[in-house]
Amino acid sequence: MTDRQQLKELGQQLRVDAVRAADAAGSGHPTSSMSAADLMAVLASEHLQYDFDSPEHSGNDHLIFSKGHASPLLYSLYKACGVISDDELLRYRRLGSPLEGHPTPRLPWVDVATGSLGQGLPVGAGVALAGAELDRLPYRVWVLCGDSELAEGSVWEAMEYAGQSGLANLTAILDVNRLGQRGPTRHGWDLDAYRRRVEAFGWHTIEVDGHDVAEIDSAYRRARETADGPTAIIARTVKGAGVGEVADQEGAHGKPLADAGRAVAELGGRRDLRIEVARPESGGVYQRPGGSRVDLPTFAVGDKAATRDAFGRAVSAVGAARPDTVVLDGEVADSTRAKFFAEQHPDRFFEFYIAEQQMIAAAVGLQVRGWTPYAATFAAFLTRAYDFIRMAAVSRADINLVGSHAGVAIGEDGPSQMGLEDMAALRAVHNSVVLHPADANCAARLTAGMAEHDGVSYLRTMRGATPVLYGPDEGFEIGGSKVLRSSTDDRVTVVGAGVTVHEALAAADRLAEEGIGVRVVDAYSVKPVDAPTLRAAAAETGRVITVEDHWPEGGLGDAVLDVFADTRSMPRTMKLAVTGMPASATPAEQLREAGIDSGAVEAAVRGILRQEREPAAAGG
Amino acid sequence: MTDRQQLKELGQQLRVDAVRAADAAGSGHPTSSMSAADLMAVLASEHLQYDFDSPEHSGNDHLIFSKGHASPLLYSLYKACGVISDDELLRYRRLGSPLEGHPTPRLPWVDVATGSLGQGLPVGAGVALAGAELDRLPYRVWVLCGDSELAEGSVWEAMEYAGQSGLANLTAILDVNRLGQRGPTRHGWDLDAYRRRVEAFGWHTIEVDGHDVAEIDSAYRRARETADGPTAIIARTVKGAGVGEVADQEGAHGKPLADAGRAVAELGGRRDLRIEVARPESGGVYQRPGGSRVDLPTFAVGDKAATRDAFGRAVSAVGAARPDTVVLDGEVADSTRAKFFAEQHPDRFFEFYIAEQQMIAAAVGLQVRGWTPYAATFAAFLTRAYDFIRMAAVSRADINLVGSHAGVAIGEDGPSQMGLEDMAALRAVHNSVVLHPADANCAARLTAGMAEHDGVSYLRTMRGATPVLYGPDEGFEIGGSKVLRSSTDDRVTVVGAGVTVHEALAAADRLAEEGIGVRVVDAYSVKPVDAPTLRAAAAETGRVITVEDHWPEGGLGDAVLDVFADTRSMPRTMKLAVTGMPASATPAEQLREAGIDSGAVEAAVRGILRQEREPAAAGG
Repeated sequence: MTDRQQLKELGQQLRVDAVRAADAAGSGHPTSSMSAADLMAVLASEHLQYDFDSPEHSGNDHLIFSKGHASPLLYSLYKACGVISDDELLRYRRLGSPLEGHPTPRLPWVDVATGSLGQGLPVGAGVALAGAELDRLPYRVWVLCGDSELAEGSVWEAMEYAGQSGLANLTAILDVNRLGQRGPTRHGWDLDAYRRRVEAFGWHTIEVDGHDVAEIDSAYRRARETADGPTAIIARTVKGAGVGEVADQEGAHGKPLADAGRAVAELGGRRDLRIEVARPESGGVYQRPGGSRVDLPTFAVGDKAATRDAFGRAVSAVGAARPDTVVLDGEVADSTRAKFFAEQHPDRFFEFYIAEQQMIAAAVGLQVRGWTPYAATFAAFLTRAYDFIRMAAVSRADINLVGSHAGVAIGEDGPSQMGLEDMAALRAVHNSVVLHPADANCAARLTAGMAEHDGVSYLRTMRGATPVLYGPDEGFEIGGSKVLRSSTDDRVTVVGAGVTVHEALAAADRLAEEGIGVRVVDAYSVKPVDAPTLRAAAAETGRVITVEDHWPEGGLGDAVLDVFADTRSMPRTMKLAVTGMPASATPAEQLREAGIDSGAVEAAVRGILRQEREPAAAGG
Repeated sequence: MTDRQQLKELGQQLRVDAVRAADAAGSGHPTSSMSAADLMAVLASEHLQYDFDSPEHSGNDHLIFSKGHASPLLYSLYKACGVISDDELLRYRRLGSPLEGHPTPRLPWVDVATGSLGQGLPVGAGVALAGAELDRLPYRVWVLCGDSELAEGSVWEAMEYAGQSGLANLTAILDVNRLGQRGPTRHGWDLDAYRRRVEAFGWHTIEVDGHDVAEIDSAYRRARETADGPTAIIARTVKGAGVGEVADQEGAHGKPLADAGRAVAELGGRRDLRIEVARPESGGVYQRPGGSRVDLPTFAVGDKAATRDAFGRAVSAVGAARPDTVVLDGEVADSTRAKFFAEQHPDRFFEFYIAEQQMIAAAVGLQVRGWTPYAATFAAFLTRAYDFIRMAAVSRADINLVGSHAGVAIGEDGPSQMGLEDMAALRAVHNSVVLHPADANCAARLTAGMAEHDGVSYLRTMRGATPVLYGPDEGFEIGGSKVLRSSTDDRVTVVGAGVTVHEALAAADRLAEEGIGVRVVDAYSVKPVDAPTLRAAAAETGRVITVEDHWPEGGLGDAVLDVFADTRSMPRTMKLAVTGMPASATPAEQLREAGIDSGAVEAAVRGILRQEREPAAAGG
């Protein structure tokens, strides 16, 4: 062990640099950094195994700041490890600096973005899962948590998951500094309150004085030696430790110290100690094998098949071809059809029970280690993890989400089970892809294709069977669409996705018998939407009707309208979507009641043509 | 106590009727109902206090089926209580029937919609809070939970909240039937696993055989007699109990029994026992006093003030005038400015710490009892509770949500703290209102106004101060907007909300100096958006540019485009929004980098006018 005094000095240096960084920035969270400085000084000096020259080294430990606002501490630690300069540190929070207010993977040593509290531990559990069950490498995952964030339910999903999975490679470091943003936390310095809860969920616990480097060192050692489950180190700390004016004071959260110079002096002045972090003893940098060609399931045109079934069979085929594929379930694999993958690849199928936040967080954690996760639940229940999905985008994570049971078409189960806001929510995620296939062959192809896309990809599948429209050799691109009905006489374009494609086709075929030409577009790629095809259709037919099994806001209709923003000619448009609150009914009744069935499409086409013949009111 | 045999018979009757209801519907969850039948038979017969003739009676107990899929049991119970007929029961899940697949308040005895698991207990904690701290009435809250849903973190937010708040009027009935939808639960029949966890969070626990009516009765009695905290009754039950072919069998979840006639025979045939539920001993039906006129804070035109400050001062004023006003915080009241209310009305201010799901659930619970809640956190962190907000709409709940720190304009803290998807998410909530004021007087008025609106209302506030644009007597309506610049020569309309209104004004004023007339609309009501004003502006200026501090999907731009769907003339449109992932920077730098500052607006106006002068490409 490094000399105790030197570790204490190192802790002081981290405090000094955290104070200086926040002072230079004019904002930030120095006091939240100061409470955990000794914890991090000892960890990095004595226990962390990390090759800073090779962040992609498979043997590297993973250090996640779940309390992301303590970024001044993290960056001060990086400086002590010699990977950022003092000048870089002092550009903290400035335009262009990768030293953001809360850590993001723009820095190569940061696995995931944090800053929305209660996410680091669930993500860390996902990384630990990769180490224990997939990589089978001895790296450890260290997660620094604040005490305030232990109020988040997601933390307890992680406690349950990691505890019951026996993830001995995971250590949670609970920085119990007693003070939250607004004032005292619920449990203050009642370390025992945390100990009881954490132990009840199957963890080992060690209580320490978070400023006693020997106690801290001993706790890390015990955590590393513990082979039968995760350990939580519950550290009593002082927020703002080391500077009397802010130490354990309310009202000192999230702001630079009033007089940084005085504080630095009180901390003993600047130091330039360097940490030699141990390099990992095993693992290496290697290219994951690419996998073989995917032999996707195919479906015969005219047969009926549910897109959820196609997903399940396709992801199982992807899993056979690509050994990096993993599937995550929220105890609905029988419904989402992820069960097909579970049957074929039980070693790469992970059950999170009804804990959608932990499921998405684990997906983020698994992709940190290069695995390609598909996380599936009902579309409606992805809303439970929306903050995690939002943050996955900030993490630049590559994850595949699958939401089954889209829309009112599920039928009798009613609105609690219907995904009716999922396209809006998923479209409003940075760099996301939103896919909603109408038939099984399309669903199978997109299931394979989404894994090739960087970022958050979302596949929306349906409960009920729909007729197979496309041959097994048809190609489907992210950003593409299919024109299913087209003639030179088309007067209206109807754009659907999923079940509404079939409703649009039925309406178009009835109207064709009367000589009313209707172009039908299957916009299976809702984001990005196929702008060239839609613009061409609009230019040729002059009128565009969208129809979707979703609320009117933020879904297919808005995506299509947006195609005509910033263009030089706007078609006449009309949007059909679910406007009233659904209840129980059969699928066909639901579509009719919602005004998105073939009858509604037919009426809309007639309506838009009729309006055209009437004189226009000014601006109306 | 009713004769034991009679209670057993009643349990059998509830099973029989649950089986019959699901059989008539052709879908539903009879086996999940059968496990809890004895628990509910004893509760309703011996302990529940409820006046079915007067659901609005303030003394009524509250029975919440957190496991909403056990609706056949709930409806069978209602039948036994004499409030629905057998014919009504057999119309379960049919079009038009209020007996939906999962309970909703379309039935007057149902407080809140359930069916998204893990929500009933947090909502129940909110109702219990109302009873203990606000109504100060002795009603009890009984929540029937499934074992699978105990994996949801939200349940542990509720355990923590209720346990630490000492809500002795709350009883959780854990129906541990060992089997989830897909297979065995994580803990199976390990009742002790649940006991340890629940006790660690400060609850009393009682383990019972969930089919022994005497044990059940005794447990309820003890729960009622316990005055110093909530009680969880942990009941070992058998899924599908009473019918050999499904009892404790995997694969029998969520489907009618194969042979309902045989099952009914095995259960001893139909019965017509009636439960005489005890009426409440206290409380009554009364009209809550309406409150006095709200004396809102005012701000002087030209001064600078943050809309979050205006919210805080306004909600405090609302609280002074309206005694039904309550404010809920997620440990950020200093940032959202809910702290102003806390200072004035500490008895109606409730701290949920960093547990946004419990905060929203409590808001839903409080409005069940007629309180008018405002729940405030960062806009970004409302995403944490999106499933609860979605379900609040299914519950027809009247709740007011406030999200501060909107968009990139917050500055240095970075993307984890920026609400950039909140308008998309909140617009896609049934019957919601989305408000985003640009100045303090508007924010104050809307804070008061939103309480008058039924459903989910959302106010989006900003961190930074903006110039006060409107006089203190200006009126602001939900669905309204303000035209801030207008002349007969206007050639472009720019629509903003929040900070972008100020950027639009700066651009318009610069362009006016060159003789380019720009109309500026403050669309503070994003949903419903002011269609007449926007249509008139579009008709008069021919071109519409939207600018918003939000992702391009689902926000203001889409709301404005939607105004022109289904109309007879589409203006030329252009959308400015945040497209790249932000990092840290000053607020002004953020707006510039995102392309939504006054310079970007100015360039967009010049661009749309320049394009106009160039020849149009076909369809482009």
